[in-house]
Amino acid sequence: MRFLHTADWHIGKKLNDFDLLADQQAVFEQLMAVAQAQQVDAIVIAGDLYDRALPSEAAVAVLDQMLVKLNRDLHYPLLVISGNHDSAVRLRTGRSWFSATQMYVNTQLAEAFTPIELDGVQFFLLPYFEPFAVRDYFQDQTITNVAQAIRPIVTKMKTLFKPGMRHILVSHFFAAGSDHSASETKVNVGGLDAVPIDDLTAFDYVALGHLHNHNALHGEPKIQYSGALLKYAVGEAKQEKGVYIVDTETMQREFVPLKPQHDLLELKASYADLTDPAYYQKQDRDAYIGIDLTDTQVIPNVMAQLRQIYPRIISLRRENGVQAVKPLQQRQRDLDPVSLLKAFYEELMQTDLTADQLKWAKAGLAAAESEQKQ
Amino acid sequence: MRFLHTADWHIGKKLNDFDLLADQQAVFEQLMAVAQAQQVDAIVIAGDLYDRALPSEAAVAVLDQMLVKLNRDLHYPLLVISGNHDSAVRLRTGRSWFSATQMYVNTQLAEAFTPIELDGVQFFLLPYFEPFAVRDYFQDQTITNVAQAIRPIVTKMKTLFKPGMRHILVSHFFAAGSDHSASETKVNVGGLDAVPIDDLTAFDYVALGHLHNHNALHGEPKIQYSGALLKYAVGEAKQEKGVYIVDTETMQREFVPLKPQHDLLELKASYADLTDPAYYQKQDRDAYIGIDLTDTQVIPNVMAQLRQIYPRIISLRRENGVQAVKPLQQRQRDLDPVSLLKAFYEELMQTDLTADQLKWAKAGLAAAESEQKQ
Repeated sequence: MRFLHTADWHIGKKLNDFDLLADQQAVFEQLMAVAQAQQVDAIVIAGDLYDRALPSEAAVAVLDQMLVKLNRDLHYPLLVISGNHDSAVRLRTGRSWFSATQMYVNTQLAEAFTPIELDGVQFFLLPYFEPFAVRDYFQDQTITNVAQAIRPIVTKMKTLFKPGMRHILVSHFFAAGSDHSASETKVNVGGLDAVPIDDLTAFDYVALGHLHNHNALHGEPKIQYSGALLKYAVGEAKQEKGVYIVDTETMQREFVPLKPQHDLLELKASYADLTDPAYYQKQDRDAYIGIDLTDTQVIPNVMAQLRQIYPRIISLRRENGVQAVKPLQQRQRDLDPVSLLKAFYEELMQTDLTADQLKWAKAGLAAAESEQKQ
Repeated sequence: MRFLHTADWHIGKKLNDFDLLADQQAVFEQLMAVAQAQQVDAIVIAGDLYDRALPSEAAVAVLDQMLVKLNRDLHYPLLVISGNHDSAVRLRTGRSWFSATQMYVNTQLAEAFTPIELDGVQFFLLPYFEPFAVRDYFQDQTITNVAQAIRPIVTKMKTLFKPGMRHILVSHFFAAGSDHSASETKVNVGGLDAVPIDDLTAFDYVALGHLHNHNALHGEPKIQYSGALLKYAVGEAKQEKGVYIVDTETMQREFVPLKPQHDLLELKASYADLTDPAYYQKQDRDAYIGIDLTDTQVIPNVMAQLRQIYPRIISLRRENGVQAVKPLQQRQRDLDPVSLLKAFYEELMQTDLTADQLKWAKAGLAAAESEQKQ
């Protein structure tokens, strides 16, 4: 059989207030087209379908439609687990009905020990887990971290292996040895919080989610992150996003890239360059852009100015820092208090004062001034 | 055929911080037993399955289990609509799968015009609707209220009537002429916000949700609220709760009461009586209790004292008001400032100061005192 391996959809994710639902829907259409062109027999989604435990109504509606299309309309068996971003309880709602049409949604550890058999393959769907859940399940108080937790899980799964079948693990964790990108900063990485890849050799293939870089495991022959559906952080700007097509006869895998509606890229340049048509006309200004400004001086209204050229700026940082308080003080003779405050706020916050903030600042400064005069 | 008509489960509802999930699960077990004993062929749930648009994980898990039991385990066809308390988007998630096992979940107006046919009956599942949705659907700008909105809906449904079949409407609105209880206080009732029952005569039966009193329509022959699953407000204390069993051959209906794990009742008495064993030993002290205190004088720690006898007090009000400021002033010679504040707070709020509030009050009074001394 052939299956498509994807993960980390993060439906509902926003990039600095830019709603990505339309981008996610667009790239999903490509994913469907790939599934059809590649004539896959099933689709694996290895966790983090949602970006948040409590997704918005809009996100819920979009994910539901995606799953309807794959499973109800195109009749693909779906092999789904929850990731650390999903609410296990909310994601599993309805699973008793889903399985009737071969949409398998595992969100509890115990469910991982009932493998799903499809076309000569046993899929073990192991959702994101906390070590304490494994400790409770196996009644083993010595289990305190993920590295310890994975061993009894794999041992138990091996007792369920049927000879002559392929054995594939689908899970969502940090596997030791992998790189990680900015999107995973909230996760404790490395050391005891990682699963040693040597403990996963029993499987013919390990389809992972969690890390957003599909190259995170540097060409491990049998263990693979699919990477995320889209670039979800500036640190992922140089990563190609896509899905894996896995053939369980040959155990060959092929990475098929997906082209986003809007790319995500990082521009490192001076303000003068960034605002020079000769420079910016060469850039993909439709992209979500993280700007790394090489200037060090104060630039009034920097974000508002740059957004006129690059409408989808998602971050602005200073490569070389900013000449902070001292140059500001040197300039303060030339600036009225409101302008000085504006410039200071922009430097610190990398964004403009809102109209309300400006109003409050003016009122506050006026009050202070009138007090001084009394 | 025979069907069970229920509504207004409000899963996840709390009564003054008392979590009702266990009570809801217990009464649901009875509902299942009734369905089996009465050998019904289907179950109608006429809206407000959840209490809130954004139910807790616990509430989501409980409702999912209830629906699993009815539809997946006991194989009852379920005819479900969303009520005004439900999030239409969240409730409909998964409906593409649910219908495969005859669980029909309608949350959008347009879906009401595809009747569900079961055993010679056409069920029109009309979810809670806002007039503007009907105006948009029929492209009729003159529709501004529910009374106007129902007419084109019923007219369209009548064109779908198959002769020789029963025609049953399932919906969730306020039907003109009905009483209403404290639970519905947030809904605009009466006048143009109500559906005139005369507009519903085309149907053989109208299974309604929204009002919690199953007698709200005073014996209308064909239009019926099932009432809520439990008593959800002190105003419902005297209402019997249960479900209707409807026989579509005879169009006879029978009300089958459900006995809650904990009743809800109102006690109107003096503090002296309420705390007198001769009185309270005759009461159902396991019940959720709304207390209507006939005393008018200040009673220190009244809530804490009463809760020692009645652990599930959900409200405390004063039948005759409280002798407020004046008697308090007469007593203030006898009370230190902290006690005076405590008594005053209790009188106004009908609850004790928390430990934190008391601490802050003491600190504030101490600060004021030390200022006076300076």
